[in-house]
Order: sequence, then structure tokens, then C-alpha cells
Amino acid sequence: MKRVGILGGGQLGTMLAEALHHLDASVTVYDADPKAPACARYKSSVVAPWSDLKAVEAFASNCDVVTYEFEHIDAGPLRALASGPPIVPSIEVLEITQDRAQEKEFLAAKALPHVHFAVVRTEEQLREGARAFGWPFILKTIRGGYDGKGQFYVAGHEDLEAAILALRDRKGGFACVLEEVVDLQLEVSCIVARSGEGDEVVFPLFENAHSGHILDLTIVPARVPPEAAAVVQDVALRTARAIDLRGLLTIEFFIGRTPARRSTGVDAGGLFVYVNELAPRPHNSGHVTRNACTFSQYDALARVLADVPLTTPQMNGTGAWCMGNLLGDVWLAQGRERLDLSCWKDHPNVVDVVLYGKREARARRKMGHYVTHANTPEAAIAAARAFRDALSAPRL
Amino acid sequence: MKRVGILGGGQLGTMLAEALHHLDASVTVYDADPKAPACARYKSSVVAPWSDLKAVEAFASNCDVVTYEFEHIDAGPLRALASGPPIVPSIEVLEITQDRAQEKEFLAAKALPHVHFAVVRTEEQLREGARAFGWPFILKTIRGGYDGKGQFYVAGHEDLEAAILALRDRKGGFACVLEEVVDLQLEVSCIVARSGEGDEVVFPLFENAHSGHILDLTIVPARVPPEAAAVVQDVALRTARAIDLRGLLTIEFFIGRTPARRSTGVDAGGLFVYVNELAPRPHNSGHVTRNACTFSQYDALARVLADVPLTTPQMNGTGAWCMGNLLGDVWLAQGRERLDLSCWKDHPNVVDVVLYGKREARARRKMGHYVTHANTPEAAIAAARAFRDALSAPRL
Repeated sequence: MKRVGILGGGQLGTMLAEALHHLDASVTVYDADPKAPACARYKSSVVAPWSDLKAVEAFASNCDVVTYEFEHIDAGPLRALASGPPIVPSIEVLEITQDRAQEKEFLAAKALPHVHFAVVRTEEQLREGARAFGWPFILKTIRGGYDGKGQFYVAGHEDLEAAILALRDRKGGFACVLEEVVDLQLEVSCIVARSGEGDEVVFPLFENAHSGHILDLTIVPARVPPEAAAVVQDVALRTARAIDLRGLLTIEFFIGRTPARRSTGVDAGGLFVYVNELAPRPHNSGHVTRNACTFSQYDALARVLADVPLTTPQMNGTGAWCMGNLLGDVWLAQGRERLDLSCWKDHPNVVDVVLYGKREARARRKMGHYVTHANTPEAAIAAARAFRDALSAPRL
Repeated sequence: MKRVGILGGGQLGTMLAEALHHLDASVTVYDADPKAPACARYKSSVVAPWSDLKAVEAFASNCDVVTYEFEHIDAGPLRALASGPPIVPSIEVLEITQDRAQEKEFLAAKALPHVHFAVVRTEEQLREGARAFGWPFILKTIRGGYDGKGQFYVAGHEDLEAAILALRDRKGGFACVLEEVVDLQLEVSCIVARSGEGDEVVFPLFENAHSGHILDLTIVPARVPPEAAAVVQDVALRTARAIDLRGLLTIEFFIGRTPARRSTGVDAGGLFVYVNELAPRPHNSGHVTRNACTFSQYDALARVLADVPLTTPQMNGTGAWCMGNLLGDVWLAQGRERLDLSCWKDHPNVVDVVLYGKREARARRKMGHYVTHANTPEAAIAAARAFRDALSAPRL
């Protein structure tokens, strides 16, 4: 029985644990929060601070392989495990993907299509860099940014001063990248899995729509022409190979309408493809694979971790799927601790609702998701919007 | 948060627990075996003998609703819970379905199509009954029979004497039913879910092929003409209503080629449909719903238990799926404790393998299953046979 350790017991870690259990792996989850869904559920879990090197070491010593459900984990303690079990994806992949500057430099070094960028480390460099870069740009902190945290659209001096004020209060200081603004048509993500034995699989593309910088809807198949989809999948695979991936990598892409001034996008039949960022783990957009594909992103990673061969995931028939996030806002709108799902009966296109078992509903907190299925992407999206509207109506 | 108790922590209870977790239910599993997969995995489990009334009561007192993963559980202790949480499906359903004589009498009383039968309780009644019934017949013990245990094909006196010898050693004695032999074309099963609120759903038909009396392959869609399938689904729904089902009921059917002499089969376009037996729980054949349908038998029961509305399950696109059981024999053939799945890479039609986490591989023990997908039932079956052959080849 393969012993797999997962750092992080949130929804991604939990769904990965389920997939691993189905391959008869023994799973131990490590989280700082005893209320993390996997820790509350599974016997084999360790609750200790992320910084507790001894606890991390003891955890790892009982595992044949260790993975993680989020990349904003300190690679330091993991480095200390060098003599321990393999970390999958590797610490090198983790370090690149948790540092936006390294990530961009990796893409540049490997000639992978990416948005033109500049790295700054201090307030002075930021002021100078902004002048040299030219307006407008997107300013993103190098570390710790997710769901739009640490991101600023900077159209001119006023925005820059506001960003500088915000950054002064930040632990990470002024370490940022400046990114050229792309004439965005849509954002897509693509998941690649690679095993130590050289098996590699690329999932279908997902189209992602954000709201308030948080993923709102994921649509599959993505509404891009087949030739553009093939280009994206090819770039995704090349990226995974370039980073020497073992495990799972989610590659987020920008697809632009017009060629950007200085960015090195790939022309895909009149659309311009750029790698935006990388996540070395199952991804929020990849939830939809549980319904839309013959096996899921969790199954794919579980197979790599449990030394089971990868095969090619197929779509579950024709039609389209749409995954919608359920943020704590929906609970707050209902004014209830337990979500009332009674309206589901009026929404036959909703095929799945997954609640993560988080006890405290907060605005913008990812608490669950749902998936619709319909004949067309537009119908799946409409069904998803209608269901969330119905869920969000206040209860008496 | 709905608190659901599951009696039984095998593969059915475990997959049900996963579905319940996704609806944010809190699940407690009760099993006599500490090595039962769910007990080994989940924090919230109770290990105590089935006969330990106090333990069962304490377990139930922490639940809002209790269900069970197998019907060969003593209804006595459950009766004692009359003042406790609801049992779903009800004790009445459990009592009928765990007693083959009551089950047949229920079908007869409700005018549901079934195979002609006679009930005997003693050796003398069996000898007399055999004479009156006429050869050949199938002899089945009233209680405790599953996977062909307690079943005898009786073609004449010699078979009868052999069966009597076997029954003498049995705890249940001679309590048996005699069944007319049907000119069987195939066996199918159909799963119905009903909620307390009157929602009811019928899953697509599954075609079941047995080997050594144990389910071998389940094929969906079943290879029966649409009009016959509609008749079976209608009978399944009528059966669930007649038994006043709340929860999940699997109805197994015989489909005969020619009208049986004395059995009351429904003519379905030249095929003859008989209810064979009932199981008030998720079913081995229903594993395939996890892959072939927009939601599974486990999801359906979880929704009923968690008071979440039912919607209609759809097929995941066109094509066919085939589920094959993995018995302990495959482990024994490999001569390994941990199943070697390396041949999976040569079987791209295999979309899923589920191992149940049972530690001791024994012949005929259900240890896991797998699912293939292909364009036709025949191709899915061929892929399933080829994969199991490859798995069963001895390892060096």
C-alpha cells in the first residue's frame, strides 16, 4: 500500500484523498487547522503549524511520497526533507510557481509565450520601472497573491500612488512584477499530468470567467476554435516538460484578440496565446473534470502518486458543462448556516453540488461548487447563473 | 449539518459516505470489523458487534437518520430503535427484502410480475413441495443467501438429496423457496430512489452477467429493446411505490425468452419480465452509475438522506460502459498483496479502477471493480474481459 502525504486538507486535498483511497493508497493529511475538511474527516491526519519543522518531518517520515494542495507553502521546511520521501511536484517546481518573478523568468528562459513583464523589488525600483514600462500595466506581488489579492491595475500616476500605499502595509514589501495589459478575449486553463515513467496526459481546455478576481464559472469545452485549443494544449505540454514536471500542473492562459505590443504570444489562427501563471496542483477550474471527463484531475494526480499508469482522459459525451463556485456570500445571502438546496428540484441541468464542509461562511470564501450540463456552453452557463441566483435568494 | 449513520463500512458504505460528505452531511459508520474500509479511514466510526444493542443505540442516538449497506442485518436491534431516528429504507422494507418468502409474497400480493414459487420450512415440506412443484426448480434459502450462497439447481431426486444434505448443516435449516426455472435471456437491474417528499427517480437499466453466481459484468445501456426497458423501469417504479420506499431500492429482474409455464411475467414486446429480488441499498451493479450517469446511486441515496431534492439522472453521453468486478482471485493470480495495475496503460478503454481497501484477498471476495467505456456494449465488454485477463496474468 502506497503511503501518500498531502500538505493541506482543504477541498483540493480532500478530493485528492478520495481519488487516492480508490487506488488503495493510505493517505495522511497535514494541516494547521483542525477544522480543515480532511482533518475533520479522516483518521490519519496531522494538525500542526506549517512552520513546525519537527511535525513536518515526522509526517513525511511516514510517507512514501508527499504532495501539496496549494503552492503558498514555505519551501524551506520542505527543503529540510531532502533526505525524506520525494515531493511531487518537486520543490524546484514549487519554488518557481510560488514566486511570480521566477515563474516569468522561467517562461522567458524557456521561450514559452508569456506577457511582457518587469521585476521590481523596492519602492524606488517600482517608481522607476513604472516610468520605463509605460502605462497601463498590471502590478502583481511576487508572492502570496491569489484570487486577485496583491493585484493592481495601474493606468497612471494616481493608481501607482494608491498601489504604493497598499504595498507599504504588506509584509512582502515592494517585490512585484509589472505586466503588459493584453487585449483579452478570454482566459483558459489546461491541466497536464506527468508520471515518473514518462506517461503524460493533457486535459481538455477549460474556459474561465472571473468575478471580483475570483474564479466564477468554468466552461468546458472552452469556446475557442479547435486550432487555438490545439496550440494551447501544445504550449501546456511544453511548459510541463520544460519544468520537468512530475505530478499535476495547471497552466492558466490569456487568449488575446490582437497582438500585444511587446508580449511574445503565439499566434493561433488570429488569437494570441500567453501563459499567465502556473499552479503545481489540482485547480479550482479542474473540479469540472469530475463530471465532464472520464476521469478527473484528482484521479490523474492520484495515479501518478500511486505509481498507476496514466491513460488519456476523454470528454463524457457531447454537450457542455459549467462549474460555478459557491462562495460564502451565498450562505450569507440565505442567512443560514446550512445551505438550503431545495431549489435544486427546479434546476434539472444541475448534475452535481459539492459542499466542502467548511464551517464558517465568509464573503469570498470558497465553500463549494456545482456543475451544470446542457447541449451548448451558453445553455450550461445560463443554467449555472439561474441556479446560483435561486440559491442566493434570501430565505424566510 | 445532517448527521447520517451507516450500518456497514464496506465498499457500499464507503462510497455512500463520500457522496454524503459532498453534501456536507456528517457521517458515522458502524461495523463489527475494525478493518472495514470506512472504519479504517474515517474518524467518526463505531466498531462493535452487530448484536450489541447498547452500541447500536448509542450510535443511533447521535444520528438524525440511519441507513444500512446490506440487508442481512438483524432487524431486531433496529426495531429497538423505534423511538430513535428514522431508518431509511424503513424496517418494514428491510424485513421484506431480507426474507425471500416475504419478498415473494409481497410481489404476489401487489400483483407485481414474479417467478412462480412455493415456500417450505421443513425437510418434510421440502420433499413434499418438490413433488408437487415438479422438476426442475431453483431452491433458495429464505435468509442469508447472496452471491449464489444457499442456491441449488434441482433437476431431479439426486439434486434434491444433495441439497437436503447441504441444508442439514445450515443454521437456517430448511426454510426455502422453490422457484420455477425461466427460459432466461438476460438479467437486468434497475435502481429507484424516492424521497420523503415524493421525489422519485429511476436509473437506466443495467444488464448483469454472472460468473459462479457472483456478479461478473454490468453493462449499460442494457441490451434490451426500448419498449422492454420501459416496461422494466415501470415495474421497478411500481415496486418501489408498492413497498412505500424511502431511500434506494435495487430491483433485479429476469428477462425470459418464452412465457414461463406458471410465472406471471409481463409481456414486453415478446420478452417476459419478472422481478427476481430486491435490495434496499446501493447495489454492486450500480457502481457503474459513478461513471455512466450524471450522478450515481450513492449521490441519489445521499440526497434522500440529506433532504436534498432528487433530479433525473442522465447518461453521460452515448456509447456504453461495462463494470467488471475484481475478486480476490485476481490478487491470488498475481501472487501479490498490492495489485499491480501496470497493464492499465495498454487498456485505454478502462476509465476507472476502484480498489476497496480490503486487506485480505480471498477467492470470490469482492475487492474492487473497474469500468470501461466504448462505442458499443460489445466493445465495452471485450475491453473489460481483456483488462481482467491482463490483470490476472501471474506476475514474476
